[in-house]
Amino acid sequence: MTDRVKEILSWYSSENPGTLTNLYRMLDHGTLAGTGKMVILPVDQGFEHGPARSFAPNPAGYDPRYHFRLALDAGTNAYAAPLGFLEAGAAEYAGRVPLILKANNSDSLYDGGGDPIPAVTASVQDALRLGAVAIGFTIYPASAHRNDMYEELRELALEAKEAGLVVVVWSYPRGSGISKQGETAIDVCAYAAQIAAQLGAHIIKVKAPMDHIEQDAARKVYEAQGIRIDTLADRVKHVIQSAFDGRRIVIFSGGAAKGTDAVLEENRQTALGGGFGTIMGRNSFQREHDEAVKLLRDVMEIHRTTWPS
Amino acid sequence: MTDRVKEILSWYSSENPGTLTNLYRMLDHGTLAGTGKMVILPVDQGFEHGPARSFAPNPAGYDPRYHFRLALDAGTNAYAAPLGFLEAGAAEYAGRVPLILKANNSDSLYDGGGDPIPAVTASVQDALRLGAVAIGFTIYPASAHRNDMYEELRELALEAKEAGLVVVVWSYPRGSGISKQGETAIDVCAYAAQIAAQLGAHIIKVKAPMDHIEQDAARKVYEAQGIRIDTLADRVKHVIQSAFDGRRIVIFSGGAAKGTDAVLEENRQTALGGGFGTIMGRNSFQREHDEAVKLLRDVMEIHRTTWPS
Amino acid sequence: MTDRVKEILSWYSSENPGTLTNLYRMLDHGTLAGTGKMVILPVDQGFEHGPARSFAPNPAGYDPRYHFRLALDAGTNAYAAPLGFLEAGAAEYAGRVPLILKANNSDSLYDGGGDPIPAVTASVQDALRLGAVAIGFTIYPASAHRNDMYEELRELALEAKEAGLVVVVWSYPRGSGISKQGETAIDVCAYAAQIAAQLGAHIIKVKAPMDHIEQDAARKVYEAQGIRIDTLADRVKHVIQSAFDGRRIVIFSGGAAKGTDAVLEENRQTALGGGFGTIMGRNSFQREHDEAVKLLRDVMEIHRTTWPS
Amino acid sequence: MTDRVKEILSWYSSENPGTLTNLYRMLDHGTLAGTGKMVILPVDQGFEHGPARSFAPNPAGYDPRYHFRLALDAGTNAYAAPLGFLEAGAAEYAGRVPLILKANNSDSLYDGGGDPIPAVTASVQDALRLGAVAIGFTIYPASAHRNDMYEELRELALEAKEAGLVVVVWSYPRGSGISKQGETAIDVCAYAAQIAAQLGAHIIKVKAPMDHIEQDAARKVYEAQGIRIDTLADRVKHVIQSAFDGRRIVIFSGGAAKGTDAVLEENRQTALGGGFGTIMGRNSFQREHDEAVKLLRDVMEIHRTTWPS
Amino acid sequence: MTDRVKEILSWYSSENPGTLTNLYRMLDHGTLAGTGKMVILPVDQGFEHGPARSFAPNPAGYDPRYHFRLALDAGTNAYAAPLGFLEAGAAEYAGRVPLILKANNSDSLYDGGGDPIPAVTASVQDALRLGAVAIGFTIYPASAHRNDMYEELRELALEAKEAGLVVVVWSYPRGSGISKQGETAIDVCAYAAQIAAQLGAHIIKVKAPMDHIEQDAARKVYEAQGIRIDTLADRVKHVIQSAFDGRRIVIFSGGAAKGTDAVLEENRQTALGGGFGTIMGRNSFQREHDEAVKLLRDVMEIHRTTWPS
Repeated sequence: MTDRVKEILSWYSSENPGTLTNLYRMLDHGTLAGTGKMVILPVDQGFEHGPARSFAPNPAGYDPRYHFRLALDAGTNAYAAPLGFLEAGAAEYAGRVPLILKANNSDSLYDGGGDPIPAVTASVQDALRLGAVAIGFTIYPASAHRNDMYEELRELALEAKEAGLVVVVWSYPRGSGISKQGETAIDVCAYAAQIAAQLGAHIIKVKAPMDHIEQDAARKVYEAQGIRIDTLADRVKHVIQSAFDGRRIVIFSGGAAKGTDAVLEENRQTALGGGFGTIMGRNSFQREHDEAVKLLRDVMEIHRTTWPS
Repeated sequence: MTDRVKEILSWYSSENPGTLTNLYRMLDHGTLAGTGKMVILPVDQGFEHGPARSFAPNPAGYDPRYHFRLALDAGTNAYAAPLGFLEAGAAEYAGRVPLILKANNSDSLYDGGGDPIPAVTASVQDALRLGAVAIGFTIYPASAHRNDMYEELRELALEAKEAGLVVVVWSYPRGSGISKQGETAIDVCAYAAQIAAQLGAHIIKVKAPMDHIEQDAARKVYEAQGIRIDTLADRVKHVIQSAFDGRRIVIFSGGAAKGTDAVLEENRQTALGGGFGTIMGRNSFQREHDEAVKLLRDVMEIHRTTWPS
Repeated sequence: MTDRVKEILSWYSSENPGTLTNLYRMLDHGTLAGTGKMVILPVDQGFEHGPARSFAPNPAGYDPRYHFRLALDAGTNAYAAPLGFLEAGAAEYAGRVPLILKANNSDSLYDGGGDPIPAVTASVQDALRLGAVAIGFTIYPASAHRNDMYEELRELALEAKEAGLVVVVWSYPRGSGISKQGETAIDVCAYAAQIAAQLGAHIIKVKAPMDHIEQDAARKVYEAQGIRIDTLADRVKHVIQSAFDGRRIVIFSGGAAKGTDAVLEENRQTALGGGFGTIMGRNSFQREHDEAVKLLRDVMEIHRTTWPS
Repeated sequence: MTDRVKEILSWYSSENPGTLTNLYRMLDHGTLAGTGKMVILPVDQGFEHGPARSFAPNPAGYDPRYHFRLALDAGTNAYAAPLGFLEAGAAEYAGRVPLILKANNSDSLYDGGGDPIPAVTASVQDALRLGAVAIGFTIYPASAHRNDMYEELRELALEAKEAGLVVVVWSYPRGSGISKQGETAIDVCAYAAQIAAQLGAHIIKVKAPMDHIEQDAARKVYEAQGIRIDTLADRVKHVIQSAFDGRRIVIFSGGAAKGTDAVLEENRQTALGGGFGTIMGRNSFQREHDEAVKLLRDVMEIHRTTWPS
Repeated sequence: MTDRVKEILSWYSSENPGTLTNLYRMLDHGTLAGTGKMVILPVDQGFEHGPARSFAPNPAGYDPRYHFRLALDAGTNAYAAPLGFLEAGAAEYAGRVPLILKANNSDSLYDGGGDPIPAVTASVQDALRLGAVAIGFTIYPASAHRNDMYEELRELALEAKEAGLVVVVWSYPRGSGISKQGETAIDVCAYAAQIAAQLGAHIIKVKAPMDHIEQDAARKVYEAQGIRIDTLADRVKHVIQSAFDGRRIVIFSGGAAKGTDAVLEENRQTALGGGFGTIMGRNSFQREHDEAVKLLRDVMEIHRTTWPS
């Protein structure tokens, strides 16, 4: 075990050996094994946006086995997907890639205009029978239904920890509590990371923060204390600090598909700010296989070699 | 075991031997045994539309035993019905026809105008005590209550899988999220199949898709990627692809009773598109016994002999 | 065991011996023992309408023991009441009259105008500790809350069946889904019987149907198929057919207290139509003891001697 | 055991020996031991109305031990209070006074204007660990939330009975179903007693009924049947009859603090009507200790010596 | 054990030895060990107000270990925090500082204007696996959702007591039942303490009461009985009396950060009134470490040396 992995595991010393083992499996797997960095392949867009919007650009992705293979070929630390996608490959790829069972999901056939809350679509028992190392769970702070999500997470997280699993939380503020722009505001992203950490997440995923400040009460403090938010690296640094002063693994996502250069630059800034890595879905699986593997490896190379100054 | 059945079972390799056994029982039963195709007789219309509307055209159908006999005589792969109908014949026909216990249902005495959600009317324990091989469950994506249905299904499906049962999902988008026409739009049907698969369904039933596209975000992709939706066969092919690239059993229904020729043509197109079969209720049990048997057999002959080019 | 009772039990062959035993106990008890007919004394009006409205006309009825005695003296097949009334006599009359524990009830101190749903006021465990042979449960199809009732029934019925109890369902369409007149419409009563049967009821109680047809979709079928609904006997016959072609015990109630002749004629028609009997509350316990016994016996004599032509 | 206590226990012959034992403990305790009459000290006003309004008139009452002592000194059959008050004295006074754990309560810091429903604030397990002989539970028939209360009571009562506890129900109609005056109307009080009895209460507490009749449907019967409601004794007699013809223990409360003479006269009338006793809170604990003991003893003397003519 | 600690434990004599042991651990820990006084460090502001608003003034506080160390260095009786903060230090500081797991929390990214209710974010099982001595729970009397909170507390408190944990309740009236000023009104604070005590709290935290009286019904009594509320000491005395006449540990908080002198004076008044101590978050952890330790020690010295006259 590298010193860095040892150090990271030390942050989770309250967890049982089962959870530490599964966290180690993620940190010790693939291209970034041993570096303490983490790049995850998430494929829940089939559920969230529909099959054609997700997989038609690269139809190989309709086949659930494709994503196991992509994760394996690129050497990502883990592969995250909803129940059905994992069921369709977990036996064939048993043990070869750490799996994160995404335990809640939303589809987009209904849009009633209300505040968002996903359906809980899988359980800890599902994760165990499929050999997953972790459960993944999305919370939407700023939604009128946030408390329901926090309480669902409380139950799943406790059960997961007792079963030796890792808990990965997607913390995406969204809903009537904030503006659209506020969803990626620096104060909001930092708060989102804090909430996930306080709820007991081991690994936290937030959106890349912008230099907007959403809440007045926060703005006063940011100005008074001179918190730097100019560059993405500055902002990532602040988010990392907001997640227990760097003692929780926080990874970032860039959202919608974009050009290669933009992806690489975003990851460089993230790494400079002390971010632990990225979670990259559409930007990888919607490209042709070899191109996707190359991009994922380029991103991983950035995270392997770029550290905060 | 035929190679095709062996291949199909391989798609479900994450399931326990109990579930594989029951899936095999369905694939190995009746006229289509061993072909990998599947025609199912469903009789829940007594609950859904009332007894006279369902059974008066062929009063023999008032007797629950009639449908067991019809399924047996025609050689359908399985018979699906609500709790009461199965209770009324499960002992007499024990073991002779694979049973699917329909675990949720709606009646039509109340129509409050709100979004649809059925009542959960049976449990996995009921399925086990009645010797059923599967539970059936209806979800209405696009309903304001979709998440409640997904969560009910999550619990029932996990319980069913642990008990070695098969999970059959009727995925019928309906509700304020889409238009009436949208209920059979190609993008919506494909999305419905994807959702059911992601929720862990083993067998998925969707409606025969029309060439309408409901969602703007989808239309852009269908046009950009040149997804063919001209013929029913084209559309079925796309739905099959949307259900894990053909690695989930998807069967189609035509809905309201119609003429024999229309039924046969619809099934021919479905088979050409790679559909696994059909589920045919009113078109069979509302006809006189021998006529119904003939129609079911004709349909099965189509599925036995028609394959995608 | 008489052939008729043997035949009736054969309809319930999916049930365990415990439930068959308790069903037998009801069919083999009292004046109608062995005939396959069934007259039940129900006394839940104290809860539903209040004590004075229920018992002041015959104050002996304030005493819970009175109704056990009345059931015994008249020889009804069973006595049905809410928890408290059964608790107050179950030990004293232990084993002497088959008891149906009414597991849900409504009082009339609150009338908020919303759709009806009773409170669940007793459990299967209560039925077992009191030595009851059955639980009774009311559903109100056509109520906005129907699904809640169906789901409560699902849980209670499964638990009851596993404990060897019989499930008796009062199926009374009521609520904003239908008109007041629709509550006793022939299509609605037939549908109500079907729903109860599909939900797994062993014994079904519906209201005596009138010659009104409530739903347009049903009317078309009634006219097209020439379903006869002229006499009460015709209508009862149709309801019986709608309850699994006569393979479920269906009994009828006439509702509010009325004259003796009307009661007798109603029962004669019911028997002519193939009805299995009646459930008679206020028409019995609000009369003086001997008069009530005579009326109940006269009714039973009708059911014993009148059969469909 | 006196004949009267033996007789009373015979009304509850369906209960297990544990519950009979605890009922006996209440009937055999204190000044009224063996008479079959029952005076109970209830102190939940600290929760319901706040500490100053409850205890400032006699500040000794701030101390939870005071009420145990008062119950003991006056020789009431039992002392009823919420969780905290019992926890604060149950060990010190272990076994010396029968305790009723009040399992639901309302405070008055919020008044949103909606229909009333208390919070369930204690459990059967709490009652058992504190050595209580009974749980107490308030229902508000006529509230829009009545069914929730009935269902909470169903669960608690079954659990209590299985654990050998007694179930005491405060049945106070209140809410949008009736008028303010209706809360103590004779038809409503009698109905409230009936509901509590049907829900399985062993001991029922209702308000002293007035000569108002609330419901039109009831008024017709009261007039037609000539039910006497002129004096409080008449009305108490009718309430007692409405609670299973006198086969359930029913005690009465007078509500707000009032003069000594009024209290005594009310109790005399109650006893003349066949009431089993009273539950007296503010009228006792808000007076100075010796005065309260005297009043309680005077009331008990009335109940000991006054019987229906 | 000092006589004072022995006396305090005697107030909780209904609890099991496990709970008494954990209560002793708090009373016997740190600077105030053995005095019966209690100063607690609470750090849930990261969740409640966000990370920057909470920790930017003293960035050392971003690190969860900082607060364990602060509690240890200052010698507070306990340290209270949400799940994540405790998980991040519980192993490293195992056994060295008594921990209170804050089991419900609210964030401030959503403000829908409705009445407040926190999310339940941790469980008794979490407290046990982390070695905590107590759970902490916030109730908001005067909120439309108060009953939900009381019922959540009932379940958690019973479970905690059975597991030998202490129950600490933050009782903060808030919501549409009272005015903003009413949140710290003397009658409201006293009532809040009573409610918490009646719900079974062992340790109660309320806000420092002001000389405003919120409720008319209370004002009459305060005036009639001449309850003194002029000084903070007077008001604290009344609150203490309202919490079972001083037989429950009640500590006070001053709320937002303020000047040192104000803090000390507030604590002096609290101690003079018989308050057991304070809970001091932002006023401590937002200051630099040594300054915070000094302030905490000064406050503790006040509580050690100041007693009611």
